[in-house]
Amino acid sequence: MITRKAYEALRARTLTYFEKASIILTAEEKDRVEVADFGLDDIEHFGLELVTYVNTDRVCAKEMVLFPMQICPEHRHPSLKGQPGKEETFRCRAGRVYLYVSGEPTAHPHAVPPASGAPYLTVWHEIMLGPGEQHTIHPDTPHWFQSGPEGAVVSEFSTTSHDETDIFTDPHIRRAPVVE
Amino acid sequence: MITRKAYEALRARTLTYFEKASIILTAEEKDRVEVADFGLDDIEHFGLELVTYVNTDRVCAKEMVLFPMQICPEHRHPSLKGQPGKEETFRCRAGRVYLYVSGEPTAHPHAVPPASGAPYLTVWHEIMLGPGEQHTIHPDTPHWFQSGPEGAVVSEFSTTSHDETDIFTDPHIRRAPVVE
Repeated sequence: MITRKAYEALRARTLTYFEKASIILTAEEKDRVEVADFGLDDIEHFGLELVTYVNTDRVCAKEMVLFPMQICPEHRHPSLKGQPGKEETFRCRAGRVYLYVSGEPTAHPHAVPPASGAPYLTVWHEIMLGPGEQHTIHPDTPHWFQSGPEGAVVSEFSTTSHDETDIFTDPHIRRAPVVE
Repeated sequence: MITRKAYEALRARTLTYFEKASIILTAEEKDRVEVADFGLDDIEHFGLELVTYVNTDRVCAKEMVLFPMQICPEHRHPSLKGQPGKEETFRCRAGRVYLYVSGEPTAHPHAVPPASGAPYLTVWHEIMLGPGEQHTIHPDTPHWFQSGPEGAVVSEFSTTSHDETDIFTDPHIRRAPVVE
């Protein structure tokens, strides 16, 4: 649960990151920037701020912000009705993001998760993305990511988003935000 | 036919538009920016400069530049092997672009095509896009676009690109560039 006032302050903070990265949004898009706290009520550690540009039955594109050191919790996009799950490409536009996927664990990863999240971050193959760098995540691949100390702006190009069907490792997570 | 020297100068010019719009590319991406003259050898009137970020069998994303008053010629994306053709969303990042699609012709359109192109620009329903504005084009819809006097930077989010199967209204067009 998050108060309306706190939610709006986080939304305004998000807009400053887009502005600094020269990402131009319409007034309508600014109004519907989403602050996802994943129901964990710990937005400084776990959260994601985003605006969806388009989400048809074939293609989706979003622009996302991570506040400094913020983590988007581990999840995967399963097959749906016999169709392969969401395929997504993350392209870093500003700042730095450390992306973790299944595979050989990186010996000295850069991420610094809080103790509360550690049990639910199980994949540790690190992909470091700076401005202009990108990575494509195939369906059903567990992944999570944390920004560096300056935060990050990340574009996502993907197949259709069905956020409500994402499978999170942490059973406490609720994807849809609850605003008081 | 375009000389290698002219091609490289156009590529360098393209990079200045990306830079001005704060679009960051890797060195590898800068090297593979494509200048499409559509085989018309009239790049100041007809052409498109682009870099493809990703093009899998499900999703494609590109960043495009139009020089001032440059036109991307009229074309459509047909069905392929029983699958619907390419669906694409154009999002203007900088400058202004006048997009034309099938539908009620606009009484006083902004586009100023050269006489040579007029016979092959047959759809005149205008959609004007400024920074942060976007439009989704459904499969098999004829469309073309021209930038305003400042040029334009446009992001494209789409299903898979099969550029070689696009159907252009002008039969003289060859999509793949021929560099001397």
